[in-house]
Amino acid sequence: MKDIISIRDTSKKEIEKILINSESMERLMKSGSDKLKGKILATLFFEPSTRTKLSFESAMFHLGGNCVDFSKEKSSLIKGESFSDTIKIVDSYCDVLVIRNPVEGSARLAAEIAKKPVINAGDGANQHPTQTLLDLYTIKKSKGKIRDLNIALLGDLKYGRTTHSLAYALSMFGAKLTFISPDELKMPRRVTDEIKEKFNAEIQTKNELNKNLNYDIIYVTRIQKERFPDPQEYERVKGTYKINLDVLGKDTLVMHPLPRVDEISREVDNTKHALYFKQASYGIPVRMAILDLLVNSVTK
Amino acid sequence: MKDIISIRDTSKKEIEKILINSESMERLMKSGSDKLKGKILATLFFEPSTRTKLSFESAMFHLGGNCVDFSKEKSSLIKGESFSDTIKIVDSYCDVLVIRNPVEGSARLAAEIAKKPVINAGDGANQHPTQTLLDLYTIKKSKGKIRDLNIALLGDLKYGRTTHSLAYALSMFGAKLTFISPDELKMPRRVTDEIKEKFNAEIQTKNELNKNLNYDIIYVTRIQKERFPDPQEYERVKGTYKINLDVLGKDTLVMHPLPRVDEISREVDNTKHALYFKQASYGIPVRMAILDLLVNSVTK
Amino acid sequence: MKDIISIRDTSKKEIEKILINSESMERLMKSGSDKLKGKILATLFFEPSTRTKLSFESAMFHLGGNCVDFSKEKSSLIKGESFSDTIKIVDSYCDVLVIRNPVEGSARLAAEIAKKPVINAGDGANQHPTQTLLDLYTIKKSKGKIRDLNIALLGDLKYGRTTHSLAYALSMFGAKLTFISPDELKMPRRVTDEIKEKFNAEIQTKNELNKNLNYDIIYVTRIQKERFPDPQEYERVKGTYKINLDVLGKDTLVMHPLPRVDEISREVDNTKHALYFKQASYGIPVRMAILDLLVNSVTK
Repeated sequence: MKDIISIRDTSKKEIEKILINSESMERLMKSGSDKLKGKILATLFFEPSTRTKLSFESAMFHLGGNCVDFSKEKSSLIKGESFSDTIKIVDSYCDVLVIRNPVEGSARLAAEIAKKPVINAGDGANQHPTQTLLDLYTIKKSKGKIRDLNIALLGDLKYGRTTHSLAYALSMFGAKLTFISPDELKMPRRVTDEIKEKFNAEIQTKNELNKNLNYDIIYVTRIQKERFPDPQEYERVKGTYKINLDVLGKDTLVMHPLPRVDEISREVDNTKHALYFKQASYGIPVRMAILDLLVNSVTK
Repeated sequence: MKDIISIRDTSKKEIEKILINSESMERLMKSGSDKLKGKILATLFFEPSTRTKLSFESAMFHLGGNCVDFSKEKSSLIKGESFSDTIKIVDSYCDVLVIRNPVEGSARLAAEIAKKPVINAGDGANQHPTQTLLDLYTIKKSKGKIRDLNIALLGDLKYGRTTHSLAYALSMFGAKLTFISPDELKMPRRVTDEIKEKFNAEIQTKNELNKNLNYDIIYVTRIQKERFPDPQEYERVKGTYKINLDVLGKDTLVMHPLPRVDEISREVDNTKHALYFKQASYGIPVRMAILDLLVNSVTK
Repeated sequence: MKDIISIRDTSKKEIEKILINSESMERLMKSGSDKLKGKILATLFFEPSTRTKLSFESAMFHLGGNCVDFSKEKSSLIKGESFSDTIKIVDSYCDVLVIRNPVEGSARLAAEIAKKPVINAGDGANQHPTQTLLDLYTIKKSKGKIRDLNIALLGDLKYGRTTHSLAYALSMFGAKLTFISPDELKMPRRVTDEIKEKFNAEIQTKNELNKNLNYDIIYVTRIQKERFPDPQEYERVKGTYKINLDVLGKDTLVMHPLPRVDEISREVDNTKHALYFKQASYGIPVRMAILDLLVNSVTK
């Protein structure tokens, strides 16, 4: 395993290893570690990000490593440098690259060019595999398992990249999925077909968003304006759902990749249903596990 | 002591402890230290700053810790995330937060939300307590004491947040204060009343800025355009004073929170009167002392 | 040797020492080092840069040090602070300064103000000495020597600061130089005169760029739009050369300070002729050697 580009490239065994290692990383966060001392992470963020970039940096520091940031200095790209030349140079300055780029497939291209491991931190509406890994970790930590859980993905299932990878990974681990969305934002057919075929998944679909959400987990997503090709479509569907305490089952846990706008009522925040802040915090140990695995497997 | 939000929350004893610890931090700066190894400082600067941000970062590095910077990535706030959600996430990624935000009271709000210590690095025209602490340290280092010193605060005493907290703290330590400003920029009545009542301070006021400044310390401030609600008021008072060697007493020391524009003539720079560059450099040991105190008291 | 401002200030002996130390730094890059533990590098980039800034930061991390970045926070300069005040403050917050500023002579001015070592990372069209040092190192590593090599500098020799310093340094080490450029972009007379006089250099000049480039090394430069005082002159000469495999000698190595646009055909990239990516990667060990030398000579 040199790179993390898509959850589809990652075997079930590799995912399980990352989830187990994340557990030990939670302990290392407290004691501190020198596992990646002298190693350098380069972040290349061509789209802004708060939690992803910061949590990668925090993860690297917790392992004793350091970070350089290419993001803000697009100067050489402005001067007309090719993406390929940029990656080659940054590759020679660091030990692992984390890249976010709105162009689909750019992370995979970077991985082909670079000798060092490349981690995809989101390529447009396509893939964001470390988000999926931390989502899996969050579910497993909270419910003790993934298999046979009733999990609903709710909201924008069409443009939200998070839910495509997550649906794939959850099916791989045997969860029972329900897709809940307005008709305009349904899970793309190709995603549903793929997981039915590969994992024999049974999938429910619903278009009523605000009633009877008695699932083990509800995974809510934000409607992201920037992903809509048609602004009118965005205007039509925004604000069509808002999860509050009335609609949740007794033991339902609510997840969200954050940032949230209005999809989850603030009354949920301080209840046992709110898993989304804990979920965000798991970004650190999971990304520590990923960095450690990739950097050390290249070094050996 | 979990947070540093306002000098008013900090007891005389706590301030004295910080001043004593700053002294030992000056030694640690040379030898290096691992006191905060594995710890992470998050900087959230919603207003620009040179020396405050850099000196916090330097202080953290001198203690063996690391820094992540939220400031440039306002992305999630742009996406509509609430201030409260942002603080909760950053809180889970770091061990201590330093926040500068033009909105008064925002640092206190952050401290209520965050489990980790929050340091106010300036909330608008309100408070900037670490500046006050380094000012106190500078005076004590240079004059050996604070009590009974004749100290003049000079310039914009109305909008300059620095002087409000400083006047409070100096009175607490028994200095004799003179407020010198144009009539339009007088120290607000509420500040004067409070320190008279609390500390029985005797205060002189003057509106003649450029004569007979025979004090132990003159603390000069810049007229900050961005603090004036009325641009015409700014035009009227800017450039009304410029301290030069002629007006200083034989042993008068000149301080300034910097950046300066024209308030102090450059002829003062290389004389024994100039304390302002030394003052800026004390930002490092004082902020080391503050970081060490807060992070270690939370960890224990 | 307190600062590195111009290659002209640096003696042959000092350059040789840096080249030798760079060799050992390549080993340290792998093993990791604490040589500059607790030390802080301040980067002040008033012009954007990818590889220079990142490679200085990487170099500092490989030596166990840390970095603070002034570049993005021009706030105090915006507030009207003088360059001199800014340098004084940053000087008191760090152990070594790296500065890039479009104004010629600004790095030398900074060095006069600062007590800590100052490294010039480019002052406009003037000097960029660490680029020259890594170019020398690249040549010596690849060819085993510099003396008596046939080296052609090709492209914009008028505005490209890189080639002025490089011509000087290569002559100092006894290389045989050929200057190849369009007539409009010839090496300035003052540069040629100086190296002829000082080093007795024999220099060839040519204005045919795309034929018979049978040299040991061809050093190709980009035509930099931002350096041309007259945009029409730029339009006239851009795109007048593109090095491809046909014109190279059997053992010719091609160098380029990067970023490149179209000056070197991509067909050269994966051949033994391409030295430019390796050249960029040597930025790390050479800058490690420079940082180590300067910081430790000040500390002692």
